[in-house]
Amino acid sequence: MSKVYTGASMSLDGYIAGPGESGFEHLFEWYGNGEVVMPTKMPDLTFKLSPVSAKYLQAHLAQTGSLIVGRKLFDVTKGWGGEHPMGRTVVVLTHNPPQGWADNPNFVFVTEGIEAAVDTAKQIAGDRIVGVNGGVIARQCLNAGLLDEIWVDLIPVLLGGGTPFFDQLSDAPVSLDGPLSVVEGDRVTHLRYRVRK
Amino acid sequence: MSKVYTGASMSLDGYIAGPGESGFEHLFEWYGNGEVVMPTKMPDLTFKLSPVSAKYLQAHLAQTGSLIVGRKLFDVTKGWGGEHPMGRTVVVLTHNPPQGWADNPNFVFVTEGIEAAVDTAKQIAGDRIVGVNGGVIARQCLNAGLLDEIWVDLIPVLLGGGTPFFDQLSDAPVSLDGPLSVVEGDRVTHLRYRVRK
Repeated sequence: MSKVYTGASMSLDGYIAGPGESGFEHLFEWYGNGEVVMPTKMPDLTFKLSPVSAKYLQAHLAQTGSLIVGRKLFDVTKGWGGEHPMGRTVVVLTHNPPQGWADNPNFVFVTEGIEAAVDTAKQIAGDRIVGVNGGVIARQCLNAGLLDEIWVDLIPVLLGGGTPFFDQLSDAPVSLDGPLSVVEGDRVTHLRYRVRK
Repeated sequence: MSKVYTGASMSLDGYIAGPGESGFEHLFEWYGNGEVVMPTKMPDLTFKLSPVSAKYLQAHLAQTGSLIVGRKLFDVTKGWGGEHPMGRTVVVLTHNPPQGWADNPNFVFVTEGIEAAVDTAKQIAGDRIVGVNGGVIARQCLNAGLLDEIWVDLIPVLLGGGTPFFDQLSDAPVSLDGPLSVVEGDRVTHLRYRVRK
């Protein structure tokens, strides 16, 4: 059975964005501070990673079969110009599927809620895992008992406020197991945790 | 010159206490989930640590020469019955020193603000380091540029809210270096970071 994980770059004080959508120069520094060039499906987005983080991220990508995002991220990125940078099918959870996207095989729009979105994404992923975008969607998965793992790229910075990785949890405290692995990159510590059920 | 550090057990989502002062059974689990018995200066407080965490904590204690706490913690603990569990001199930052403590050599009351408290604690610590209690005092040190290191005992739990390790930072974002070390205990990951100045 396909597992469901969420992951994000998070400051030591628990934020995936600083106040007023700031702090990304810190949170995403590790995507650009190394010598290993890693192209994405977006022509103007190329990662330059440390060897350790490149190996970690490549393994991560290889394991991932599909993604789930919310409508807000889909809209903000304009559907990443037609294909997600990871090159995976994206399940978009939305009340109203957008016009003009029905013929694009890279996106599937699900209107029946988080459980249906996870079911759809698991079918697409097959024996690989499903990646869930941090924030609202990850919280919905966690609250519904559908989240298996949390992958944190822990950044050595205090942002002092902003968007928490997790808030409004309906069943806190949530016990985790792990870290299952600790991988030390350059200005990032890659941590993986399992959600106890 | 003596360094100043702060440390605390913190949930993965950044809290040193859950909502309504909850969650301590998670945050402090590692103080009681092992076989290495470690007495403290308080007769009814004995730690039972994993071998890894015991070694880490003993090294930590050996390096620490003095402590700084706020008046609130001093009052809540009633001065730990006369001596701090770590057996170190405690500098208490307060506007009004309490009555009846002038003859106790384990406590020094400083009324002239955080810089004076740090100066006093450094003199007491000598060539060892100064431990600063998390929360308000640590934030005052950080905001005044007086904090050198942050030691986080990262706990695999999401508390979903409560008391952040750091908030109301006057100069966020605050860049850190590290982790300087990663020590994996049982249901705790001991991380040390240096504050960039």
